[in-house]
Amino acid sequence: MNIVGEKTIRLAHGNGGRLMRELIDRVFARHFSELGPDKTLDASPFSLPTGVAITSVDAFTVQPLEFPGGDIGTLAVNGTVNDLAVSGARPHFLTLSAILEEGLEIAVLDRVVASLAAEARRTGVKIIAGDTKVVPRGHGGGIYFTTTGIGVRNTGVTLGLDRIQVGDAILVSGPIGDHGIAVMLARQEFDLHGNIRSDCAPVIDLAEAAAALGAHFMRDPTRGGLAGVVNEIASATGFGLRLDETCVPIRDEVRGVCEILGYDPYTLACEGRVVAIVAQTTAREVLAAWRDLAGGESAEIVGTVTNPPARVVLATSAGGERILPELEDEPLPRIC
Amino acid sequence: MNIVGEKTIRLAHGNGGRLMRELIDRVFARHFSELGPDKTLDASPFSLPTGVAITSVDAFTVQPLEFPGGDIGTLAVNGTVNDLAVSGARPHFLTLSAILEEGLEIAVLDRVVASLAAEARRTGVKIIAGDTKVVPRGHGGGIYFTTTGIGVRNTGVTLGLDRIQVGDAILVSGPIGDHGIAVMLARQEFDLHGNIRSDCAPVIDLAEAAAALGAHFMRDPTRGGLAGVVNEIASATGFGLRLDETCVPIRDEVRGVCEILGYDPYTLACEGRVVAIVAQTTAREVLAAWRDLAGGESAEIVGTVTNPPARVVLATSAGGERILPELEDEPLPRIC
Repeated sequence: MNIVGEKTIRLAHGNGGRLMRELIDRVFARHFSELGPDKTLDASPFSLPTGVAITSVDAFTVQPLEFPGGDIGTLAVNGTVNDLAVSGARPHFLTLSAILEEGLEIAVLDRVVASLAAEARRTGVKIIAGDTKVVPRGHGGGIYFTTTGIGVRNTGVTLGLDRIQVGDAILVSGPIGDHGIAVMLARQEFDLHGNIRSDCAPVIDLAEAAAALGAHFMRDPTRGGLAGVVNEIASATGFGLRLDETCVPIRDEVRGVCEILGYDPYTLACEGRVVAIVAQTTAREVLAAWRDLAGGESAEIVGTVTNPPARVVLATSAGGERILPELEDEPLPRIC
Repeated sequence: MNIVGEKTIRLAHGNGGRLMRELIDRVFARHFSELGPDKTLDASPFSLPTGVAITSVDAFTVQPLEFPGGDIGTLAVNGTVNDLAVSGARPHFLTLSAILEEGLEIAVLDRVVASLAAEARRTGVKIIAGDTKVVPRGHGGGIYFTTTGIGVRNTGVTLGLDRIQVGDAILVSGPIGDHGIAVMLARQEFDLHGNIRSDCAPVIDLAEAAAALGAHFMRDPTRGGLAGVVNEIASATGFGLRLDETCVPIRDEVRGVCEILGYDPYTLACEGRVVAIVAQTTAREVLAAWRDLAGGESAEIVGTVTNPPARVVLATSAGGERILPELEDEPLPRIC
């Protein structure tokens, strides 16, 4: 993919003049087509169905830009779409900002934007506004995206930390840690190879199925992983959470890499999973619904909400117990 | 401003765990207070007045982060708010993403976020969603912000490129190029010093005054400057635009720096100016209204929309004429 013979991003691609216009036309507008904004507008009108409007924003700085199972484009769509989905909302629109680094191969940008467009079509969102900046070599990461999602809460859905009760079941929609390990292996910093693919995917169907069955609370375990979500729930509700290690789905390969590198799989990011807190009486029903959906085949009931104190206890496969903390001082940079 | 004794941003401030939560609490949430989002939510509900909803997104990568007359915080508010304002909309909400670089002084972040919060209060927008990422040293610019603005079009306002007619007057709300020169001098790359302050400011009042008087089209001349806006109009409408150099307000100091460094002031970014195209019959009225408003004291009528061909002609002070092109290959990086 050439832009008037150019193969890499130059500072002039961000100057607001002809080269920037051409870059936008030939990469972003070309892939977005009917999905994208009117380029003659500085600001775009949009129209939501009636209901409670919901918004969420995420920046994406993943390194490398492309990894097995996804790239920064699929991540930029799903990361934001999923925040809306687990809040009980249907995503409708995204805005997109791209901070490009001088020297970036335009072929890479082209692939990633194509992939972002495909994922937006798959999830049913339109990209209604965009912005492109170029930073000098050594001041960026190739591509940084930020997406803001705008959607509408689904009718009748009432999710909230305040709906969580002692005795509720904790469900996870699939194996944890795939995204984190796929990205780390793709960096080739370690002499490790594997077939792990990122779980990066929209969770709209999974979230809507659980919400329709009266789920009390949902969250997608991205940065901070499952450990982050359950600790956040403990700290916000004052309840304890008890996870059964033997029930938490973790691929053998993920577990193996974690053991070698010293990572805790519970703190690794997922990008296509849902953690749901549901009444014990409906837990099996939610589980069955999830297992019938794409991406939910390996869903499990992994634990229970318990009485205070507010802490997360992991019942280990060896028959013991340990406190599962949130991430403290670990850097774990640029996995999303 | 210390965060548990820390003075600089570390990678762990972006890991989704305790340090990230503390950073958000002690910097972002502290300054945003009633202005900011509910931190327990991944996605935030918002409610707009009835009318046409409008959105716009901008990334901010300015270097240095602080400059005379503003900083990346004031810029992140005004850059997006002004895109909505010149589209005839009243801004209500912003989402904010922050990409921080390892090693950033937390004191700098604290000042810039305080300044962003103050500007949001001044412009009447709430910050309803946020996200923070940390990238390794040498992969960022200290702070990159992206803001998405959400607003509602003011009743009765009809602005559009299609409303521009031959004979219309071209107005500028104040001196051009102040922001671009203020930022470039603040970089101290040249042995030049001056008292030029950025014009960074909200243009909500200026835009509403012009729209109320029936302006046909408005734009804020940011990247690409006045030259960019008028060339965009020429190219979109097929009309010519004629500017009278003697009428275009440019500070002597800006002109002086441009002469020394070889910059064209017409291509320099403004961050608090409006270019309006209005019917010749109402031009004086808009001018008078602007001159009564803060930031519009030096407004001028600077030219006229003419018959095709689509090009911008500058009538020079020497009595000649020259074509005023948009930016071509100039890098001009990181002024916004």
